[in-house]
Amino acid sequence: MQDKLMLMIPGPTPVPEAALLALAKHPIGHRTSEFEQLMAEVTQNLKWLHQTESDVLMLTTSGTGAVEAGIINFLSPGDRILVGSNGKFGERWAEVGEAYSLQVERITAEWGQPLDPQKFAEKLESDKEKQIKAVVITHSETSTGVLNDLETINQHVKAHGEALIIVDAVTSLGAVNLPIDVWGLDVVASGSQKAYMIPPGLGFVAVGPKAWEAYKTAKLPRFYLDLGQYRKACAKNTTPFTPPVNLIVALATTLRMMRQEGLESLFARHHRLMNATRAGVKGLNLPLLTADSAASPAITAVAPDRVKADQIRTTMQKRFDISLAGGQDHLKGQIFRIGHLGFVSDRDILSCLASLEVVLQELGYEEFTPGAGVAAAARVFTES
Amino acid sequence: MQDKLMLMIPGPTPVPEAALLALAKHPIGHRTSEFEQLMAEVTQNLKWLHQTESDVLMLTTSGTGAVEAGIINFLSPGDRILVGSNGKFGERWAEVGEAYSLQVERITAEWGQPLDPQKFAEKLESDKEKQIKAVVITHSETSTGVLNDLETINQHVKAHGEALIIVDAVTSLGAVNLPIDVWGLDVVASGSQKAYMIPPGLGFVAVGPKAWEAYKTAKLPRFYLDLGQYRKACAKNTTPFTPPVNLIVALATTLRMMRQEGLESLFARHHRLMNATRAGVKGLNLPLLTADSAASPAITAVAPDRVKADQIRTTMQKRFDISLAGGQDHLKGQIFRIGHLGFVSDRDILSCLASLEVVLQELGYEEFTPGAGVAAAARVFTES
Repeated sequence: MQDKLMLMIPGPTPVPEAALLALAKHPIGHRTSEFEQLMAEVTQNLKWLHQTESDVLMLTTSGTGAVEAGIINFLSPGDRILVGSNGKFGERWAEVGEAYSLQVERITAEWGQPLDPQKFAEKLESDKEKQIKAVVITHSETSTGVLNDLETINQHVKAHGEALIIVDAVTSLGAVNLPIDVWGLDVVASGSQKAYMIPPGLGFVAVGPKAWEAYKTAKLPRFYLDLGQYRKACAKNTTPFTPPVNLIVALATTLRMMRQEGLESLFARHHRLMNATRAGVKGLNLPLLTADSAASPAITAVAPDRVKADQIRTTMQKRFDISLAGGQDHLKGQIFRIGHLGFVSDRDILSCLASLEVVLQELGYEEFTPGAGVAAAARVFTES
Repeated sequence: MQDKLMLMIPGPTPVPEAALLALAKHPIGHRTSEFEQLMAEVTQNLKWLHQTESDVLMLTTSGTGAVEAGIINFLSPGDRILVGSNGKFGERWAEVGEAYSLQVERITAEWGQPLDPQKFAEKLESDKEKQIKAVVITHSETSTGVLNDLETINQHVKAHGEALIIVDAVTSLGAVNLPIDVWGLDVVASGSQKAYMIPPGLGFVAVGPKAWEAYKTAKLPRFYLDLGQYRKACAKNTTPFTPPVNLIVALATTLRMMRQEGLESLFARHHRLMNATRAGVKGLNLPLLTADSAASPAITAVAPDRVKADQIRTTMQKRFDISLAGGQDHLKGQIFRIGHLGFVSDRDILSCLASLEVVLQELGYEEFTPGAGVAAAARVFTES
């Protein structure tokens, strides 16, 4: 049977039909009043979603391009930065810093463990000369399903006073509460194929006033990723370079859906999906990679020890057309990841767990009572 | 009446229904064998379209991002480059060079005039120490509708021996013959919303062997735009960062359409559309911005003197739902531009000219015999 694919990877995530149909509308010109109206609406709704009064800029990039823009617009060669690295993406931002000749200091944790805020506190407190110019944190580490304690790390950054906090919120924005203005986050980057519920192709960068101050003296070279150009254009409801018009029309659609659902419901739903997924996996006696206290509401990583992770993935795909993600780098073959962010409902989690039960049985894994995974998830849903 | 918009701007260009429907397909995961198959097919067809055996890489960027990648991957700070500047885009590449601390020397011509190859010859010949590392040429200058004489300029670059030739082919690739391997072009960049017949959101960079040699020692910083990463991934039929899956599915569709049409027919069609448009405009006694000898097969710029360019544009939009482009920078209000690249047929040119005749009459411009514009275009079509 064709066309029954169910994406449960951490991106691209499922796209609602209304957004797919919006994508298929013929493009309009981007130097028109019609496009300006669209930009005005989208920008307003992006600010709502980001819980900020400052700028939220759209770039034609993947999430990586957005985070890179969020780093290179506010720093100069040789600047010292701290980068939290406890997964593939945290490590990537350290590499971006190195590619631009920044003095990068990694604060690491094992993949699957959260970053320790205390380590940031120590580095920041001992920096009496205020040489640390930025702290880069991956909020939800997509490669492991860890949610780092951004709020506490940010408090240490605020106590330092000088450093900017730059956040990779690619798989957290729209799924986890991230009150940018209340917390005083300086730069927050994300990507369209996650909680935004549209396909990949758009990057987002929220920039606050302190970051714009730093921008004035920041000397790293950039042109296409120069956020000053995007800010100037955005103030006129336009873009400096040709934008992906169709994706923006689709985004307008999903942002309206998100506003209708409301921020609190959005966050509560992702939290519930996480709890149900984790309860279900526990019900199947499969080990989770991360502790409950550090779990991301966007992704759950499972580290099965008595059956091969990739065999589960392959069979889920073949048998039920459910796409799960594998492990990356040294976790390749060690884990599988269930994405539950964006356009994902309670029913999707039940489908996934029920299918997983069948697959596990077919693979000869008998460490659970049939039905126990679904039953555990059901308890979460009925109790919440 | 709604939904009758006809785009005759130089991008976004019209998108065929098959590509719109492909866009609306639910995204697939990009780390799957299904996506790898798609990448393999698309890459092969891109090489065919680029007339090259070397790499053609896809980036999630606009055309500007692709050209920037085409510049910064092959140069180091302080490198001397020549940039042809006879319009908004040529000037933009000079600014990119300056943003990255290159030593930029502009070879200019009036907007609307082509670059003089002899000026490049002189600079290159006098560079006995081979300090010029690259020559950047905008093939079809979108802001004026000039086609620069890339073939001759490239011969001077080849005589120099050291400098790379880097080409902005954003509105020429797929519309004008550009035999990359035969001419030995080192870097050729383009964008999806032009002759590719899909919406904006994908950039393309073709890179030849001499450019890859330069890449090894090039020191300008980059990460998201690092073409080495794209090359490595492309060899495995994948991408280094999340690609805009839906656009690539649509691209697969339009590349198949292009192969079916054939390169010679593609180029002949764009040439015919240009000739018919120019004949029609002449039949209406409206001045053309560029001489026939320097005209781009992608865009025709008209510089009306007895009726305001923007009034023509506005009325064409209101009366007939035809979107024409205006002038940029100092040509704002001085010209209008008719885009005729990509999914444009002979009929579209007739529609546009016939509508233009009505609009001119309604605006009180009486310097032509009604029917003369369409008749002149018809002659081109019947004779070619």
